[in-house]
Amino acid sequence: MIGEEPSKIRTHEAAEHAFIVASLTAVGVTESDARDVADVLVAADLRGVESHGIARLDTYYVRRIEAGVVVARPEYVVLGDRPTQFALDAGNGLGHPASKRAMRAAIAKAKEHGLAFATVRRSNHYGIAAYYAMMALDEGLIGLSLTNSTHLAVPTYGRDKTTGTNPIALAIPAGDHPPFVLDMATTTVTFGRLEVSERKGKPLAPGWAVGPDGAQTLDPTLAKTRGALLPLGGIGTENGGHKGYGLGALVEILCGVLSGGLFGRDLNTPEDGLHGGQTGHFFGAFRIDAMRDAEAFAQDMARELSTFEQSAPVPGSERVQTAGEPEREFTTRFRREGVPIDPKVWEVLDAMAQRLGIAPLERFTVA
Amino acid sequence: MIGEEPSKIRTHEAAEHAFIVASLTAVGVTESDARDVADVLVAADLRGVESHGIARLDTYYVRRIEAGVVVARPEYVVLGDRPTQFALDAGNGLGHPASKRAMRAAIAKAKEHGLAFATVRRSNHYGIAAYYAMMALDEGLIGLSLTNSTHLAVPTYGRDKTTGTNPIALAIPAGDHPPFVLDMATTTVTFGRLEVSERKGKPLAPGWAVGPDGAQTLDPTLAKTRGALLPLGGIGTENGGHKGYGLGALVEILCGVLSGGLFGRDLNTPEDGLHGGQTGHFFGAFRIDAMRDAEAFAQDMARELSTFEQSAPVPGSERVQTAGEPEREFTTRFRREGVPIDPKVWEVLDAMAQRLGIAPLERFTVA
Repeated sequence: MIGEEPSKIRTHEAAEHAFIVASLTAVGVTESDARDVADVLVAADLRGVESHGIARLDTYYVRRIEAGVVVARPEYVVLGDRPTQFALDAGNGLGHPASKRAMRAAIAKAKEHGLAFATVRRSNHYGIAAYYAMMALDEGLIGLSLTNSTHLAVPTYGRDKTTGTNPIALAIPAGDHPPFVLDMATTTVTFGRLEVSERKGKPLAPGWAVGPDGAQTLDPTLAKTRGALLPLGGIGTENGGHKGYGLGALVEILCGVLSGGLFGRDLNTPEDGLHGGQTGHFFGAFRIDAMRDAEAFAQDMARELSTFEQSAPVPGSERVQTAGEPEREFTTRFRREGVPIDPKVWEVLDAMAQRLGIAPLERFTVA
Repeated sequence: MIGEEPSKIRTHEAAEHAFIVASLTAVGVTESDARDVADVLVAADLRGVESHGIARLDTYYVRRIEAGVVVARPEYVVLGDRPTQFALDAGNGLGHPASKRAMRAAIAKAKEHGLAFATVRRSNHYGIAAYYAMMALDEGLIGLSLTNSTHLAVPTYGRDKTTGTNPIALAIPAGDHPPFVLDMATTTVTFGRLEVSERKGKPLAPGWAVGPDGAQTLDPTLAKTRGALLPLGGIGTENGGHKGYGLGALVEILCGVLSGGLFGRDLNTPEDGLHGGQTGHFFGAFRIDAMRDAEAFAQDMARELSTFEQSAPVPGSERVQTAGEPEREFTTRFRREGVPIDPKVWEVLDAMAQRLGIAPLERFTVA
């Protein structure tokens, strides 16, 4: 939501899912792969992460397939398949089916051998990182999901863009208590926050972005067009910017280098939609009962999360939340009230449906 | 170094190591365990992390053993030993020997099975997190090291201290290029930075700490005595403070909950030296050639690190560094010039040597 009020024009979860499947199969994606994409995009919209949901269906996925940048029916190649590792070449297909397959492999291997990692190379944008980490929760496992991405961020003391927003997602089950689900870009903010500031005519906060000379800027337009994002911790080292930069580099190494995919200057292309198959992902699944009795862990985990949730809030705040809580609240609300879709996104989706010759997405308006 | 000029009074690496071993064996620690501690403390001083080196020998280790808070010859209990997992109860002994043992186990298991995790519970302060991650480098593996610690930090929108500085360390080999070694507290700064600011009479930077009401403070004394550290990203969510809080909570969960050790309110005791065995650690080791040809990875890794190092610096900076580089430069320098020890630490070490009836640490002065 990026701090904005959700759109009053809504759709239902099932209708959104079916519409995404219809759109992708219309451009040649298999029904099964299209369902994988729909699962991830609908989950993003339900979690309030509008920027990673159906808003990207046309520009990131459908149009790139139509343009031949992304392959509709890729040849998936298994590069490695060992007891605790799985490595996949996604053949420049959509990121979601390849990622679901890799995460499923990691989960199956972890169930048998305690823990497992999986890498994917020559992939594309995979949606929200949390989705894949959360796949592990259904099996009572801890899940990890990382991806590199188009380079938008400078390193500490640098002015070239050398990493993306490179998110880290980790999901840990907590028995009857809702799980811990961390999903964080390793930059202070995402590119979308610059766009929102520009649209609202508001200056950026210090620590968000730099101009072309690498000096901090509060000008959203300059940052967007000729500048770059700052790592978590901001500019220089005073507030720990080198830590965010280090985490971003770590994600780049595990997703780009360890997968045998692209990284560094080879990945440093603009977000122009003209380059497919540049993205790499890294997944992990870990069995809890390999380390500790699972039931005792679940009880302790619930107690640990409650420690945060029941700790004293600062004046003006209702209470302390734990990772994954705001997104869970959005999901409950949007399942009840319908999934909000921005008016501008509706325009894009309607035009796309007409172009593809499919029925438009069903909608209704809330008060 | 925390931004200060190193002391001109120095000692040699070997002399420091022998002195630490003599001190610890004098209070009943076995020669082998004492050597483990010395390895880690000397490495910290060589890396310029003075706060985690011999400066802590008396207060954190020797005196706590003398006071019976930490056990000199603990009973180590192996709680779990599977192909890819190892779990140890450190019996309230020193953190370093237990941690080296756990990391060695993870490395051995990873060499055989591709990857492995290890946990340690009922342990104590283990020194610098990077040490254990870097143990994996000698075997060409990726190493991971996490620890929880005395609660000093508030969660986002909270004013109770619910996590420590909870560092994350990860070491990745890069063939002929020096390795990538990330070692970062998940708070904006460590407690030591508040002490330095107080000593220098300088205000804190925004984003570092809060007062007792959870509101940001720039007063180092207030922050130290009645306040708390802020997570990486600072106060609230505007600059991503919820991300640092999430990372700190993650470390707490893996080290405290997954190890079966203490966490949450049970760990929330002051750093008064009266409570031993509260700390938990988490380690990982991962074989590269399980995911990808190790030689190709090493070459690509060197290329990736060079991408950062050769990227354009901001005006006024010489160049962009990668994680582990500043510490490596300190090590080269201090091996040549001697290990600097703060005058106040010398006083403590001399008094301790006299108390224990051992020879004082050899010293020399540089120009």
